Amino acid sequence: MDRGAITNWNADTGTITTDSGALINAPFSPVARYELEAKPTATTPEELLAAAYAACFTMTLAERLAAAGYPSPVLRTEARVQFVRPSGYWEIPAVRVHCSAGVAGISEQEFLAIAHAARLQGPIARALRAEVTLTVSLDSMPGREWHLPLQRA
Amino acid sequence: MDRGAITNWNADTGTITTDSGALINAPFSPVARYELEAKPTATTPEELLAAAYAACFTMTLAERLAAAGYPSPVLRTEARVQFVRPSGYWEIPAVRVHCSAGVAGISEQEFLAIAHAARLQGPIARALRAEVTLTVSLDSMPGREWHLPLQRA
Repeated sequence: MDRGAITNWNADTGTITTDSGALINAPFSPVARYELEAKPTATTPEELLAAAYAACFTMTLAERLAAAGYPSPVLRTEARVQFVRPSGYWEIPAVRVHCSAGVAGISEQEFLAIAHAARLQGPIARALRAEVTLTVSLDSMPGREWHLPLQRA
Repeated sequence: MDRGAITNWNADTGTITTDSGALINAPFSPVARYELEAKPTATTPEELLAAAYAACFTMTLAERLAAAGYPSPVLRTEARVQFVRPSGYWEIPAVRVHCSAGVAGISEQEFLAIAHAARLQGPIARALRAEVTLTVSLDSMPGREWHLPLQRA
């Protein structure tokens, strides 16, 4: 099966509509994309990629937690797509992701193993070339944060 | 700079919010993602990737047309992200894109060269591993359609 979206562009601005209607004639523009705006005035391809990644990672992590016996996690994920122009061309070198998780009864070790698998195996992650750096935290261990893949000492 | 999105997940369903507010607490769910729905009930990561791709390709094509002396194109692009499970795991083998363009005064040859470059050089396209198949048409040549990359005879 497939899922899709349609854009309409006229001269120097466009709109996006998705199959589900989550976006209906949502504007996107070069100004929002290429200029540093204090408050973004429109969506951009990179913002939508961030949304796709965050949703995919979150759902994959929830599925793997459920399979391991933790069916009701509370997950908050933020994905930020880097967008830079080091040499004249705009590019996406990396996606930075942070996930904080409330998972009753899980150990640090088991959570990190499951988060690591979700990071590698989500369909959006596997469709991407960009490097993904992930940090995770557990609500049950406030003040601690882990980078995945785990750095060797 | 970066662009981002946040998801909140609770037990078996979630919502997405993006920096710009194009999506505010938009629901996404396993049902919408994995089941074939006649009318999608929620957005999915794949739909958002399709939106990201369509917006990026469209903007890249418009920029390249402008650089070639065609500053006011009218472009309609549909991107469809394939989502299949050939062997137990869901994956994204390909993105299928169609773009119909109204570009006053352009030749078929010049348009195809510019569309070809836009297909390869958009930042989202370069961040993806998935294969992209693109068909394009010109409003000035109704009934004709080209596949990019052009097939050799």
